[in-house]
Amino acid sequence: ISVGNVVNGFERYVFSFGDGCDTPPLDKNLLGGKGKGVSEMADMGLPVPPGFVITTEACKYYRNNKRAMPEGLDMQVEAAMKVLERQMNAQFGSIDNPLLVAVRSGARVSMPGMMETVLNLGLNDEAVEGFARQTNNRRLAYDSYRRFITMYSNVVEHVNPRIFEKELEKMKEEQGVTQDVDLSADALKELCQRFKALKLKATGTPFPDDPREQLVRAIRAVFDSWDSERAGAYRRFHGYPDDWGTAVVIMTMVFGNKGDDSATGVGFTRDPSTGEKRFYGEFLPNAQGEDVVAGIRTPQPVNELQAVRSGSDLPTLEKTMPEAYKQLMETAQKLETHFRDMQDLEFTIDKGRLFMLQTRTGKRTGLAAINIAFDMLNEGLIDEKELIMRIEPEQLVQLLAPVFDPQEKKRASPHLAARGLNAGPGAASGVAVFSTEKAVEMKAKGVKCVLVREETSPEDFSGMVAAEGVLTMRGGSTSHAAVVARGIGKPCVCGCGSLRYNREENFVRVEGTGMVLREGDPISIDGTTGEVYFAELHTTPSEVLQVLIDKTKLPEESKTFQQFNTIMTLADKYRRLRVHANADTGRDAEVARALGAQGIGLTRTEHMFMDKERLTDVRKMLFSETEQHRKEAVAMLLKYQKSDFVEIFRAMDGHPTTIRLLDPPRHEFMPHDEEELQQLADAMDTPLEELLRISEAIREANPMLGHRGCRLGILFPYLTEMQAQAIFEAAVEVAKEGKTVMPEVMVPLVTSKNELRHQKAIIDNTAKAAFERSGMTLPYKVGTMIELPRAALRAKEIAELAEFFSFGTNDLTQSTFGISRDDSGHFVPAYISGVEYPGEGQEKIQILDNNPFDVLDQDGVGELMEIARDRGKQSNPNLKTGICGEHGGEGRSVNFCHRIGLDYVSCSPYRVPVARLAAAQAAI
Amino acid sequence: ISVGNVVNGFERYVFSFGDGCDTPPLDKNLLGGKGKGVSEMADMGLPVPPGFVITTEACKYYRNNKRAMPEGLDMQVEAAMKVLERQMNAQFGSIDNPLLVAVRSGARVSMPGMMETVLNLGLNDEAVEGFARQTNNRRLAYDSYRRFITMYSNVVEHVNPRIFEKELEKMKEEQGVTQDVDLSADALKELCQRFKALKLKATGTPFPDDPREQLVRAIRAVFDSWDSERAGAYRRFHGYPDDWGTAVVIMTMVFGNKGDDSATGVGFTRDPSTGEKRFYGEFLPNAQGEDVVAGIRTPQPVNELQAVRSGSDLPTLEKTMPEAYKQLMETAQKLETHFRDMQDLEFTIDKGRLFMLQTRTGKRTGLAAINIAFDMLNEGLIDEKELIMRIEPEQLVQLLAPVFDPQEKKRASPHLAARGLNAGPGAASGVAVFSTEKAVEMKAKGVKCVLVREETSPEDFSGMVAAEGVLTMRGGSTSHAAVVARGIGKPCVCGCGSLRYNREENFVRVEGTGMVLREGDPISIDGTTGEVYFAELHTTPSEVLQVLIDKTKLPEESKTFQQFNTIMTLADKYRRLRVHANADTGRDAEVARALGAQGIGLTRTEHMFMDKERLTDVRKMLFSETEQHRKEAVAMLLKYQKSDFVEIFRAMDGHPTTIRLLDPPRHEFMPHDEEELQQLADAMDTPLEELLRISEAIREANPMLGHRGCRLGILFPYLTEMQAQAIFEAAVEVAKEGKTVMPEVMVPLVTSKNELRHQKAIIDNTAKAAFERSGMTLPYKVGTMIELPRAALRAKEIAELAEFFSFGTNDLTQSTFGISRDDSGHFVPAYISGVEYPGEGQEKIQILDNNPFDVLDQDGVGELMEIARDRGKQSNPNLKTGICGEHGGEGRSVNFCHRIGLDYVSCSPYRVPVARLAAAQAAI
Ligand SMILES: [Mg+2]
Ligand SMILES: [Mg+2]
Repeated sequence: ISVGNVVNGFERYVFSFGDGCDTPPLDKNLLGGKGKGVSEMADMGLPVPPGFVITTEACKYYRNNKRAMPEGLDMQVEAAMKVLERQMNAQFGSIDNPLLVAVRSGARVSMPGMMETVLNLGLNDEAVEGFARQTNNRRLAYDSYRRFITMYSNVVEHVNPRIFEKELEKMKEEQGVTQDVDLSADALKELCQRFKALKLKATGTPFPDDPREQLVRAIRAVFDSWDSERAGAYRRFHGYPDDWGTAVVIMTMVFGNKGDDSATGVGFTRDPSTGEKRFYGEFLPNAQGEDVVAGIRTPQPVNELQAVRSGSDLPTLEKTMPEAYKQLMETAQKLETHFRDMQDLEFTIDKGRLFMLQTRTGKRTGLAAINIAFDMLNEGLIDEKELIMRIEPEQLVQLLAPVFDPQEKKRASPHLAARGLNAGPGAASGVAVFSTEKAVEMKAKGVKCVLVREETSPEDFSGMVAAEGVLTMRGGSTSHAAVVARGIGKPCVCGCGSLRYNREENFVRVEGTGMVLREGDPISIDGTTGEVYFAELHTTPSEVLQVLIDKTKLPEESKTFQQFNTIMTLADKYRRLRVHANADTGRDAEVARALGAQGIGLTRTEHMFMDKERLTDVRKMLFSETEQHRKEAVAMLLKYQKSDFVEIFRAMDGHPTTIRLLDPPRHEFMPHDEEELQQLADAMDTPLEELLRISEAIREANPMLGHRGCRLGILFPYLTEMQAQAIFEAAVEVAKEGKTVMPEVMVPLVTSKNELRHQKAIIDNTAKAAFERSGMTLPYKVGTMIELPRAALRAKEIAELAEFFSFGTNDLTQSTFGISRDDSGHFVPAYISGVEYPGEGQEKIQILDNNPFDVLDQDGVGELMEIARDRGKQSNPNLKTGICGEHGGEGRSVNFCHRIGLDYVSCSPYRVPVARLAAAQAAI
Repeated sequence: ISVGNVVNGFERYVFSFGDGCDTPPLDKNLLGGKGKGVSEMADMGLPVPPGFVITTEACKYYRNNKRAMPEGLDMQVEAAMKVLERQMNAQFGSIDNPLLVAVRSGARVSMPGMMETVLNLGLNDEAVEGFARQTNNRRLAYDSYRRFITMYSNVVEHVNPRIFEKELEKMKEEQGVTQDVDLSADALKELCQRFKALKLKATGTPFPDDPREQLVRAIRAVFDSWDSERAGAYRRFHGYPDDWGTAVVIMTMVFGNKGDDSATGVGFTRDPSTGEKRFYGEFLPNAQGEDVVAGIRTPQPVNELQAVRSGSDLPTLEKTMPEAYKQLMETAQKLETHFRDMQDLEFTIDKGRLFMLQTRTGKRTGLAAINIAFDMLNEGLIDEKELIMRIEPEQLVQLLAPVFDPQEKKRASPHLAARGLNAGPGAASGVAVFSTEKAVEMKAKGVKCVLVREETSPEDFSGMVAAEGVLTMRGGSTSHAAVVARGIGKPCVCGCGSLRYNREENFVRVEGTGMVLREGDPISIDGTTGEVYFAELHTTPSEVLQVLIDKTKLPEESKTFQQFNTIMTLADKYRRLRVHANADTGRDAEVARALGAQGIGLTRTEHMFMDKERLTDVRKMLFSETEQHRKEAVAMLLKYQKSDFVEIFRAMDGHPTTIRLLDPPRHEFMPHDEEELQQLADAMDTPLEELLRISEAIREANPMLGHRGCRLGILFPYLTEMQAQAIFEAAVEVAKEGKTVMPEVMVPLVTSKNELRHQKAIIDNTAKAAFERSGMTLPYKVGTMIELPRAALRAKEIAELAEFFSFGTNDLTQSTFGISRDDSGHFVPAYISGVEYPGEGQEKIQILDNNPFDVLDQDGVGELMEIARDRGKQSNPNLKTGICGEHGGEGRSVNFCHRIGLDYVSCSPYRVPVARLAAAQAAI
């Protein structure tokens, strides 16, 4: 007698599903994911074994009341079992005609560490005989019984399953057989008795014969498993609250192991790799669920197309059970129409009859996600907004990266030399070069090359630009090589530790093999997989880039481009955040525009300094102690920088362009080897010893926390002046060409208002002078990076002078965590993967969910950003706020930026599409 | 007709003082410091030239109303002038009997950059003749007139005074005289005309002849000077609000230049160097105020005692004008009794008659401050609380430092070789040693030595302990040498850039001189002044330490100790903050206790590792890659650490002792030279190349942000375990001796709760095991440093596990500012002293008020501390909070810690008295 949420005066904890039952409330939070899935399928009239769900509320009660079952639950379970008995025409606990059930856990989200499944519950020494008679299959009965004893003992009473496996092996030996299926019913019967003895020995208590006791203990085991250490740890890492609790799903057993007209299987309603609209699945005839997982037998393809494509000659479900197959296809179709997404299914065929055991949204690759989303949009299953939400921003990267043909890879497999970190997606191929000079030389000759270095430094920038891709032997996915490569869209494999560079003889060898690589040898790297081949593999730029940048393809020739374009158009329709790019050259700026950037959020002037032909002047400017030398160098650099800015402003016509003043510590510009030092000494007309003294004097213990950022421009105002002059003269020049120039000058590493005040005075004076000389005045903005905690805290004062804030989340992460990005490889990987937990009851402890240099740390760094935004707006309500740095192109971080109301994100040009999509998702 | 604050219906802006006037409200905020001083003296009946004050309110009105004078002000000034005219029996603007006045600015605090003084206002070409007749002194009249033209043109109209000086020189040349006083009245008259012509040429406007115009313009000039760039900049740096405004003080002129019975002078009511109770001052006969400042003539001592003591044979005021002198002494006495503090006075004697022009609290040295405070307590002028407030905490350091006898210094002056930064107060003398080994060797031989190094590293710790003092050639007052020296109470001079170390031949030379220092040569350093002598000067420990630590003096034998002791006793009576010490050895702990520490707030275990005999084991433990070696090393170190902790716990009987787990990056422990590396390789049974590889692998780009702090203990749990075991075994051992042990284990550099969770599990497990083994359980605490911004932000979670927070403000300052302490020397000194301001109207811009590593940055670092305190207490109301690190012994920082409600501060043992006093002042 149940009304709403009350049954006989008690809260309702049990909901039956299936034939003749009311549909339970289809609420994942109440029924768990699994319970909702089967209830919903039953409601749709699909073939689901009847059963019931014990709600998460019961689990909550149990946890909050010292493991006491809620009052009324026993009666509700009893009543639900009665319904099952009626439906199945069998009795739970009966010896002659037993009803067997499966007990499964099922929280809102699937969660490792929780009890999974107990099948065949309800069997005991007597019921097994009744079951044998019922099915007329004694072997099935004892096979099911021994499986039940094993599963129950393991998942309910935590007995190590190895002891049962060993006994099974022993029995097969005794019987002189090799396969489980060759064991006779009698042998299995004997095995069941031995299993029960083993269980008694292991736990000190006999195996419970009473099916009602089995059921209650299985339910309690599910509840208890919610609080297992592993499940708890999993929740803590994902930030799931402990009080969700788990539901319990109890279903009548169906048997895939009743013979050749029975089977069990799993499948996807569409191909999870490609997204193609065809059922993709595997099954095992005459088997129970756990056999598929155990991997003892090779699963068979569900349909003929799949068999042909995968070259399998195993019989398909389509062939062997055409009726059930047809029913499965119809069911899949109905589920897709109902759930409007690709489904991941579990099914069992019991003597030719199909039963659905589970349905949930299926995981898929990036390509598949995109294809499926578009197909479903065309099929009318989903609308535009849903299409946007269906594609992971990160998956777009695959659309943009150059690719190796899989055939090519197969061919080249003997030349696979090493594997490193897949630090910059895409494929690159060419001849190996071991220095930036060589890379530039090759580029000049029109020869494609891959730069191979122990590790890269800022001086390698032009080499990285010249090369097709970059391979390093040291450094993680946040090393200089990796960061720069992603920034300029180059494939990169880094930290390839098995490679050894022999400096004297200038070759690379692969440790533990005889393989050797010399300059000029062919090499290919796959930055998507981390593979390194000592061979030349052909690559093609992605179709999207062929259309947008190389213009070697027309839009109408590429479906991939059209999809990309549609996604971007839709994303732009919904997003609020502006997306800018980090671009250091005119070329970067053009790429950024082609990929949809609405401005430049960061131009790093120092990258312009690293050019070979300028470096000597840069060094003269930074290290000369004579006014004359310095002035000459400044004049030269002014010319260079101006021409850079001219190109950038041209490309950005009508779009804001943020230029950051010189940022890195001076020592980065010092030559590293004796020869170059001598050259510089000559060029500077300075004794080598003097130069060495200067080099020593500016060396820093912790350069990241040293004399850099605006601290340079404050002590050496001519640096700021030169850069500002280059900016404003370039701006005037481009404006006179009739373009709209919107320069924004950004001061790095401030901690106080007075620093900005000093730099702004130089910038404003220089602008005024430049405008007066040219007879033309342009609007411009002066703003600041917020990249140190103190800047965030003092944002109110700083915003009295700043027209914009750009959060430099790389530095802000470094300072907030006190972790140097360059050194983080020593411990951050272990922090993420987790270390052994020295305390009680928990194996591992994870310190970080993500690398905070990859995914913005919302709890720490993010709070400082919110503080800065609030305080900044207090004194300057028109303050423009944005983020530049690696996080600006990472989906979760972009989402956060949207949520806290920033105006824009800025990321490397090739991440712009990712940011556009992420911004749209955040807005929807 | 004035009633209260209203005069004839207008607000009252003018208050007259002197004979027959009501006493103005004695409010510094209204009258300014100077105005209040003279008004109060007039009220006391002391001889003050009559005058009046225009209040700061008038200035505020003027500033807020586009430089319009408030209505009614002109009439009120007119009325006040009338009062003066009556009092002086002269008329302002009269040709025959002119009234002359002085106009001075005077804000709440004296402020550089504001207009100072215009004397003799009221003169013009006609009035000067009247004045000559009036005084019967034509030379006086024209001398006053030419001074007036100069001062007025300069301070009111900003004419460069150099043009007048040059003209004066020219005139002296023309007249063939060398001294100003030798110019005749006619020559001066001619000079006045030339000055007026120069003024006209410089400003384009004639010198104003109308005294009323002169007065109005001088008043406006005072108001305007409040908004001069320099005054504005000064206010910004000191955080004084712009809206205070300045008052104007107008007084009738009195003349110290009327002849030999006239004089002008300054003085202190007690000796500002020693505090001795005797008037100390200087005067010039026949002079006006600015002559004393200009320094053209040598000022004469006021009294005979002073003359004798300073060896001066110039006539004293006591001798030459005994009546005026007597009056001055009586006045000084009255002022002290009235203001209950030592006063800094200005006076003028006009034809034998004394006039007081200013009185304010006098600045004094530390020793003087203490002596004066005690004298005044004894005289009943002040009470206990006032005594505490009268002593700058920093001044106590002088009571504790060893000293050179001034006679010794005089004798040694030919050997003065260099001056460096006075980084660690006190004096040290001995033979020079250039290495830690040599220092230790000398110590063992009982020879006192001074360690002379280019710079020091952690390995030099034992050398610094062995030496009497430390001298370095590089590094600022926050360098390793300076920090450690202050920590262990050693005199230190650092950054002595004129010294050059010749490594090959092992000697030091003084650049630009022929002086050379070899190992074994005598050397003395004065860490209080920064002086370095290449000679041996005798030092004595301060009397306080002789009583408290060396026990070579009885308390009753030392007045200094008694004063110290009284100050400390009083401080302890009033303070709320507990004061702990940072101590790394039993000896440190004893010193700390003797100086009043109530616990240890920081024991740095790594300092224990640096001991020569342990270092090899430490290195084995940190770098061995074989389990066996590591275990042996750990066992050895366990023994060492335990014995250290036993000594510390013994010394700290009954007082909490906080021990920090290993903190520095491992590379700090790597040998630096080839030879030592080879030795270690041998000891570790490892090839040198392997060791070099390890050394390379653990080298970090930014070690401060690297693999250090708890990041070590998490990846190498045996480090934490060994240290915890040593702590608890030592605790048990000392507890069994009947002492009360209160260990607190502190985890460094956490950024998240899970890090603490990991380390706490090891600590708790180890404690449990140690207690079980010993059959004894002790209470202990586990807490954490809060030294990174993220830890402060996540304090709520962290405090769920932490029993205490200790703010590590050194690291917290580094990370909040993004400034490495080691590298801060490159720009922080310029940030503090100010850099050229590139904008309008202001010469310099200061970025930092103080070095944030010396004085806690309350605006940034301090806010993070408050955030951490609030959030920590939210989840753990019993959370104990404190500060360790350099700031714990700095007065302003201690005050802040009191204000935000911390429980304790911890500082180096020799700073404990400073902290005790600062804590008391904060509480009062
Ligand atoms: Mg930055
Ligand atoms: Mg620290």
